[in-house]
Amino acid sequence: MNTEEKRPLILISNDDGIDAPGIRSLIDFVSDMGDVWVVAPATVQSGKGHAITLDGIIKVEEVAPRNGSVVEYRCYGTPADCVKIAKNELLPRIPDICLSGINHGSNASINVIYSGTMAAVIEAGVEGIPAVGFSLCDMDWDSPMEQLREYVRLITRNALEKRLPAHTVLNVNFPTGEIKGIKVCRQAATRWEKEFEKRENPRGGNYYWMVGHPICMETGEDTDHWALSHGYVSVVPTTYDLTAHRSIEMIEAWEL
Amino acid sequence: MNTEEKRPLILISNDDGIDAPGIRSLIDFVSDMGDVWVVAPATVQSGKGHAITLDGIIKVEEVAPRNGSVVEYRCYGTPADCVKIAKNELLPRIPDICLSGINHGSNASINVIYSGTMAAVIEAGVEGIPAVGFSLCDMDWDSPMEQLREYVRLITRNALEKRLPAHTVLNVNFPTGEIKGIKVCRQAATRWEKEFEKRENPRGGNYYWMVGHPICMETGEDTDHWALSHGYVSVVPTTYDLTAHRSIEMIEAWEL
Repeated sequence: MNTEEKRPLILISNDDGIDAPGIRSLIDFVSDMGDVWVVAPATVQSGKGHAITLDGIIKVEEVAPRNGSVVEYRCYGTPADCVKIAKNELLPRIPDICLSGINHGSNASINVIYSGTMAAVIEAGVEGIPAVGFSLCDMDWDSPMEQLREYVRLITRNALEKRLPAHTVLNVNFPTGEIKGIKVCRQAATRWEKEFEKRENPRGGNYYWMVGHPICMETGEDTDHWALSHGYVSVVPTTYDLTAHRSIEMIEAWEL
Repeated sequence: MNTEEKRPLILISNDDGIDAPGIRSLIDFVSDMGDVWVVAPATVQSGKGHAITLDGIIKVEEVAPRNGSVVEYRCYGTPADCVKIAKNELLPRIPDICLSGINHGSNASINVIYSGTMAAVIEAGVEGIPAVGFSLCDMDWDSPMEQLREYVRLITRNALEKRLPAHTVLNVNFPTGEIKGIKVCRQAATRWEKEFEKRENPRGGNYYWMVGHPICMETGEDTDHWALSHGYVSVVPTTYDLTAHRSIEMIEAWEL
């Protein structure tokens, strides 16, 4: 095996689309750590959760590599589609790691379940590929990201070298402002409030826009919400085994 | 409080759409157990996962109640949209339970992460509403469902009376053929194989259809896969806390 063959194969995706500044930063940050293949959505896929395309076709176009990537594909599908098609149809071999982001906006706390960024990560995890999602808690696409470079590299290097526990991927969120350090934490219980704005249709009837804001239900220092609101990077080990293991006994007691 | 006010408010949704036979069966099965309000997608939303509509408007139409429902709304959105808009805008009060399904096809094992049926259930769970998703492991919309009636009623009655553990909803799947009983179990590790069919575009280039089939990676008697393949109804207590709690210590050992 020559030196080139030993370079890790890094798959990069996101949910803001292949032209978003966040994915360009992510590619740039890790481009010397391996061969970067990009398979990312053609269009913005925010809030698409773990949707996959069952009701139509998926088109993929190879596009010119940019800022350190080896190959890039624009995929007319969801983030989960991107990872599935990358692994099954496009990549030369199983990637050593899948990175997703850097998302423009938080994927901490309950946001993880709506997140296309994390769907790409979870899809890779299901396939046994180490995977990390990165998000910056700022929805402004012009927000600077250079201050995240060393953190992205540190976490990626660790995930590549030390692997990840079984059925586990990482959900990394960056606070705005100065970064004090990194906290490994759990997902805070959160819910959204005032979720809809109702408007009148000029042709009659009403329609809705989803708006609202998240309310954190707990303040524990072991939560991602606490870490982020105190200037720390939150790293939540995240799983796709949705079993509420601790509840099995209680449901068994129903004697169904 | 008069008797009528004491009747439970039952919210019903699904991902196969408001006209699917499965949701009509579900409404019929529980219509005497409370006041049934239906808020379900206008169109088939299979595989839409926990997608929410952020990039457009959500329209809702009231339609005539059928087979035991009190009110029905057709929602031009995803299953998660349906539950959000039901709870925030349409229902007279917080429902006592949210039921989803009966899905035409399995939502057991890893399918739970792609499932619109379970997204409705999880969305209700996040709002603190007891919630149960029902799926029949048969994709044929003509498949009979009458044999599920007593099981749906038993599980719904228990969920209403005994409530559910914190941060827990139920993912109930029914086997095809004769039912031997009910098993409370965990989600089996599964992955999909041969996921794409590649076709040539008559105008040049290629496109893909998502196809494939699930491969179960484990055979434990405590899994939903085992229960279903041995003729049992699988009941998996399911959570939306995606934290891999058992992995926190291992990631902390990275000393980031």
